[in-house]
Parts: sequence; structure tokens; C-alpha cells
Amino acid sequence: MLNSVQSIVIFLLLLGFSKNYSQTNHQEDSLMIRSIFDEALIKGQCHQNLYELCKDVGHRLTASPASYEAIAWGKKKLEELKLDSVWLQPITVPHWVRGEIERLDFSNKNTPLHVSHCTALGGSVGTDGKVLEGNVIEIRDWSELEAMDDKSVKNKIIFLNKPMNPALISTFSAYGECGEYRHYGAIKASKKGAKAVIIRSLTLRDDLNPHTGSMQYEDGVDKIPGIAISSKDAYQLSRMIQEDAQTSIKMKLECQILPDTISYNVIGEKRGSENPDEIILIGGHLDSWDIGEGAHDDGAGVVQSIETMRMMTSLKYAPKKTIRCVLYMNEENGNRGGKGYAKYAEEYDENHIFALETDRGGFSPRGFSIDGTSEQVENIKQFQTLFNPYFIHLFEKGYGGVDIGPLKNGKVCLVGLVPDSQRYFDFHHSPSDVWENVNKRELELGSAAIFSMVYLIDKHW
Amino acid sequence: MLNSVQSIVIFLLLLGFSKNYSQTNHQEDSLMIRSIFDEALIKGQCHQNLYELCKDVGHRLTASPASYEAIAWGKKKLEELKLDSVWLQPITVPHWVRGEIERLDFSNKNTPLHVSHCTALGGSVGTDGKVLEGNVIEIRDWSELEAMDDKSVKNKIIFLNKPMNPALISTFSAYGECGEYRHYGAIKASKKGAKAVIIRSLTLRDDLNPHTGSMQYEDGVDKIPGIAISSKDAYQLSRMIQEDAQTSIKMKLECQILPDTISYNVIGEKRGSENPDEIILIGGHLDSWDIGEGAHDDGAGVVQSIETMRMMTSLKYAPKKTIRCVLYMNEENGNRGGKGYAKYAEEYDENHIFALETDRGGFSPRGFSIDGTSEQVENIKQFQTLFNPYFIHLFEKGYGGVDIGPLKNGKVCLVGLVPDSQRYFDFHHSPSDVWENVNKRELELGSAAIFSMVYLIDKHW
Repeated sequence: MLNSVQSIVIFLLLLGFSKNYSQTNHQEDSLMIRSIFDEALIKGQCHQNLYELCKDVGHRLTASPASYEAIAWGKKKLEELKLDSVWLQPITVPHWVRGEIERLDFSNKNTPLHVSHCTALGGSVGTDGKVLEGNVIEIRDWSELEAMDDKSVKNKIIFLNKPMNPALISTFSAYGECGEYRHYGAIKASKKGAKAVIIRSLTLRDDLNPHTGSMQYEDGVDKIPGIAISSKDAYQLSRMIQEDAQTSIKMKLECQILPDTISYNVIGEKRGSENPDEIILIGGHLDSWDIGEGAHDDGAGVVQSIETMRMMTSLKYAPKKTIRCVLYMNEENGNRGGKGYAKYAEEYDENHIFALETDRGGFSPRGFSIDGTSEQVENIKQFQTLFNPYFIHLFEKGYGGVDIGPLKNGKVCLVGLVPDSQRYFDFHHSPSDVWENVNKRELELGSAAIFSMVYLIDKHW
Repeated sequence: MLNSVQSIVIFLLLLGFSKNYSQTNHQEDSLMIRSIFDEALIKGQCHQNLYELCKDVGHRLTASPASYEAIAWGKKKLEELKLDSVWLQPITVPHWVRGEIERLDFSNKNTPLHVSHCTALGGSVGTDGKVLEGNVIEIRDWSELEAMDDKSVKNKIIFLNKPMNPALISTFSAYGECGEYRHYGAIKASKKGAKAVIIRSLTLRDDLNPHTGSMQYEDGVDKIPGIAISSKDAYQLSRMIQEDAQTSIKMKLECQILPDTISYNVIGEKRGSENPDEIILIGGHLDSWDIGEGAHDDGAGVVQSIETMRMMTSLKYAPKKTIRCVLYMNEENGNRGGKGYAKYAEEYDENHIFALETDRGGFSPRGFSIDGTSEQVENIKQFQTLFNPYFIHLFEKGYGGVDIGPLKNGKVCLVGLVPDSQRYFDFHHSPSDVWENVNKRELELGSAAIFSMVYLIDKHW
């Protein structure tokens, strides 16, 4: 509880701050930001654009036919905005195909057949046209796997049953903790002699949705298939193993790793009127997993990035710096778009001063996660009061995003839009990541938050 | 951007603050709050309780058979928690019944029949067993109605087509602006000689859901029926009127206003160990509208209030003050529960020091809206940093809620839990306000926020 001396000092300090970031600026900026939110909420087009991307194009795994449709769609959308230039940036990408059949059945002495809700992990090998059969061992933690001798793992199927931790407030933290089980499960299990790996889907819900996602192999280690089962099936499998240590599975996957091929990042920019060589980048990724529609991941980010460019024109905002929208390819299984983009940027000696990625779902924007110098973080925090009327409060040092990550060079400030994360992993990488599960207003508020930040950076940096 | 002198002064000030609200307290409190969130997220029961309330009891309009089932359910739930006392508080309530048939059709020269998605407004009279027919006049604003002469309104049906304003960030502000059209539409239209009133549903979505809600009559003014149509039907009706000024409607409603009857608030309390006469109240309302399941409105608030009492026991927290949970009856169409409760409190000279209402949906908690003295507001704001790790940032002077409103006496501090509001009016008072549309984590986070605030008030006030 403040005493009066403290109150007065605080008041004087606030006066001091407003001299740094002048009152005139604040008024002008708050009016502009209000116009941006009005435009997004009253005339917003991102929800309709998301409908087109989800329903007309559909899911769009890198190198799939739909991914090229998505590229054409994104290019057309940016071209319609009459920017200064729109182009495709070629990149070499991996080409993984799921195949027709994916099936995983469990059986034990009590349950002759349990058919699970499953999905191959992205990048997995298939089962060579055969049904892979074997006994299954449940592992809750790497340490349990490491403690086992190779003989007892040999030719077994490892079930990595690591649930996400519900106590973590940011669901991304919980995802981060479990992600390595999906990424490295096949490598670690294979090193022990296992012939396949099953993971519990990375979600906080108890339901029947299987969630895919990328997995990796290591040179010199046998490639074994990887598959995810729904959380309810994970409970079932665990129960069956407890009942009967001889619980076995049958698995069939037809996935294939094909030779690398060519795809594209889609780029559009509006040249700066004063400092065209200073680039402010916004973007999300155009590719998605091949189940669901990639609505939150990352259709939302794609349409929010396009919307920012649209609003710039409709609000007649002429940026001082160059504003560039990048719809990245291949975030999900290789990040070749992000890496390729950064390579071009370096080769052409481009000066990116700021990059903002939106790839955490189309939910109510809560703030920004800033990967930059302490000074950059402080400078951005100074804008916080401008966002508070829009219930955007979170300004903290953190992480930008996968796509913009390769741009990191100690100078460019990388920022991630932080939406409310509570529902994200209900949908993420699953059949339920569809347009119907994205709320129009939440999506629009995100686009307004992005443009507001871009505007402030363009004007004040 | 801070200069170093400012930084030092701020640092000293922060030191100063922590002397007021001591470092020891802060550490202790932050540990307790962490335990509360852990309990809610790991062992939370409110989502399961909400399932029971929505699926076993269902919607529960005041004085309906299900409302008495809800009372029995709420009482049982509180009794299971082994509180110090649980009781029912009798109150006289209005008794409105919807009846079987509600239908509203439009027709004009181009469209012989358009059957709308409609719902009688709560409290409306019916159409006397007949079909009410007439021409319809569209009104966008009170001023348009007032500008019309009585002759041209006589025997017409008034269509109040006032959409909620999407530009307002808090959807409650937009609802507030439009609410009077639903509340007073029948009175104002009747005064002009109209024979029925149609309102556009209060929602920000374009869909086919009709949204009900309370409407009022005035003594001495003819009671005319009131009905809401979905936003898509509102577009349709508006278009038809533009095509043809002779657009007419047929309406049939079987609602009835029956004599007042008796119902109950459900109350449970844990007596304070040090100051039992100081009461901290938490609550939501047990009644709901009779379409959907009242899951967000206010099943969420009911189960969050019960959950707070449960967590107090499971975390072995012995409150210093008396913590009382009130499940109010009749918030939706009369607030007799809220008024009755306050009357008892006054008669028995009870000392409520703090009351927290949760009745804005089971969404991610964003903060608290505080209706209290400036000192109370400042005192609560001091707790803000304890909530920031849970992404709860909003602490501002505002409004508590309908149920606790009648307690206001210049001394008790009234507080409303503020969840994210973006999706609330997608569901509010409509058939889609069902359990499936409430996210488990969001609901649980709200319950943890409530108990955390109650804990801080109990300990520090």
C-alpha cells in the first residue's frame, strides 16, 4: 500500500518516462492503434481468408500437391494487395508421404483386439508393406529406458508414455518438456534394439485425437517406425500392459521418405519511404501437417500476416522502413524455409532489424515474447501501455519462433506473438485443427496486435 | 527508455513496496498460490462437476423442475465437502414458462416463407393460443423509433436490429450497449402501439443460434410478446424489408407468466478460525436459461465456487475469516436470489467484507474487476504481481456482478472475476452454451484464480 511520498515519486517518474516517449507520440500512436483494431475487427478479412486456406486448399504438407496450391493461393492473396513486390523464393525441401494405411492394434490376454486412434509421426519410415508385430514395453521417462539392458529391449516396441504436465501455465512449456520424446524417441529406442516406437500424443486433453509431429533419425542408427496414439488410447495401452506384460501390438504404416524436391517461400513487401534497406519482417508458415486443416498451425499466422499487409494499404499507412511478409514453407518437418530465407538474406546482405513470427495459434493475443538485446526488450516494453486497452499485457524476454530463428545474428530483434495457449494443444497437429475451431475475433485481435507492433517499430526504431 | 537515475529510484521504490507488503509474505503467498494452481490443474474436479450439472441436471430456469434438481445437486456437492454448514435460503421467485411452440416466419413478395431460428425472450407473454400476424418495421436505434409517429407504428411488429459493436474489445461493453434493446424493447414498442417486438440476438457471431435473455414490462403499458432471432435471420429479415416494405411476419409463442413461487439459494460455509464474523463470499448462479445447458452461464461459476471450497479442504487451508459459497437462484430473470440474500444479510447484521462473483464464462482468467473504495482497489492491485505468473494481469476498478450487487453498502468490496470475453457471446443464452464448449483448463485456471484471491483477502485484510 503506497505511502504519499512513494506516490509522488512514482508520479514524477511517470512524467519522466513520458518525456522519453513523448506525450505527442503516445497520443498519435494510440489513435493509430485504435484505427488498426477497428479495421481488424470491423472490416477484417483474415477469418474469410482462413476459410479459403482451410477449405479450398486444405492441409498442405511440404511437397504435397496441396502445398503448391497453398503457395499459389498465398502469392495471389499478396498480389491482390498491390504491394511493391511479391515473389517466390525457391528452397530444397524434404518430401515425406504418409501413405494410405496406418494402423496400430493392441492385444493381451483379456483384450483380443483394441484398435487405436493413431497417426504416423512425420518423417517416419513405414513397415515395408508388412505388419510389424511385437511385444510392447512402457517407458515413462528416458531414465527408465536407459536403465534397461539392451537384451530386454531387443526387438521390442517401446511405448513412450509421457503425458504433458498440466500444472505448467504456458502449455508450450509442457510441450517443450515432452517434445524430445517425439523427436528423439525412435533414435534412442533404436539404439537399444527396439523395432518401433509409440508415443502418447502431445496434448493436454483426454480424448481420441491422435497428434502427429516431426521425428528424427540419426545417421548410423537403424530407422524404426514412429507412431502417436491418442491420450485415451495411451491410457488403454498402459492398462493392458499392467494387466499382462505380454501385451503385443500390430502395426502397419505405409509412409515413405522420397528424395528432396523444390518448394517455395512466398514473399511480399512494401518498400520503405525513408529507410527501405531496413527490413521489418512478419510471417508464419504456409505448410501444415497432413491431418486436420492446419487452421491454428499455422493457417492463423499466415492469414494474420497477410492481413497486416492488407491493413497497411487500407489504412493508407506508408511505412518508413520496408515491411516484408514471409509465408514460410516447411516449418513442420525441416525448417528449410526458415533456413533458406536466412541464407538468402545473408547472401544479399539484407538488413533485417525486426522479425515477428505468429505461429502459436489464432487465440486471443496476450503479448509478445522478445528474443533480443536487453535494450531491445526494454524499448519494446515501453510500448506496453499502448497495448493494455486491448488486454495485451505480456512483454517479456523469450523466444521468437522457428521460422525466424535462423535470422538470429545478435542484431535483429526476433519477436513471437503470444496468444492464450490454453487450448492450443487440443488441436495442434491433429484432425481437429480445423477452421471451425478458430474464433473470428481472437484471430482478428491477433492481426491487429501484429500490425500495431510493426507500426511502432517502423515509426520509432 | 529508462535512464540510470530512474532505474535506481524505481529499484528503491520497489524495495519500499516490499516493506509494506513484506518479502516473507510474498514468498509464502506465492508458494500457496502455486499450490492452488497445482491442485486445480492436476486434481481439479470442476470440469467433471460441470458435466454433471449440464448433462444430469441440464438447463435449469428458475422455478422449473430442473432448477430444484440443481438445488439438490448443489446442496449435495457442498455437503460432500464437509463444510461447517450447508443450508438452503428460501426466496420468492418469478415463474415463467416457455411452452411448447415458438415460431416466427417472415414473408414478402419474393419470399413466400422464411422460417427463422428464434427464441422467446424470457418473461415474454405468449400470443394467446393464436398466430400473431402483421407487417414489420425495422428499427436500428431508439431514435428511429422515437421519430416515428404512433399511427405508423400502430399494430405493427417492431424489429430492433441493433448489432453488437465488434470494435469494442471487451464484448461485455458491446453487450451493455445493446442490452437495453432486449430489456426495454417491448415497453418502448408497446408505448408506440406496436403489437410485438423482434430483436436481433445479442451475439457477435453471424450464425443461426438464437439467444434469449430477460425482457421487461412496465405497469400500465400493454404487454406485447418479445422474441429474438439469430443474427443470420436478422440479415435475412432486414433484406426482405428492403425488398418489400410490406414484409409480414407470423408469430406463435406459448409462454406464460405464472404466479411467483418459492425457490432457494444454496449456501455452504467454512467458519473462520480468528474472525468468524467477517465473511468472504464467493458465488455464481445456479439458475440458467432454458435453452442450451447454461454451461458458461453460469454453470462455470457454480462449479468454480464449489471447487474453491473443495480446494480449501484438500489443501488443508483453515481460513481466519468465514468463507461462504453462495449458489444463487434467479440471476437470469429477476435477481431475487441476489436481493433476497442481501436482505437476509442485512437483517442478521452480517458483516460481509468481500464478495467475489464468477459469472462471465469459463474462459481463461484475465483478472479482476473491483467495485470498492479507492483504498480497496489499491490494496487488491498490490497482489497483482502474485498473479502475473498465471498470466492474470487485469486489476481495475469496475463491476462485481448481478448477484452480489445488492450487497453494496459502501463497505464491502465487490469483485468480478474477468475471464477472456472474446467467445462468451458466441454461446451466451443460446443452444450452444453446452459443456462441450467449456475448456477444462480454462475453467480450472478460473477456479484457482478465485481461491488465490480469497486466500489473500482472508490472510491480509
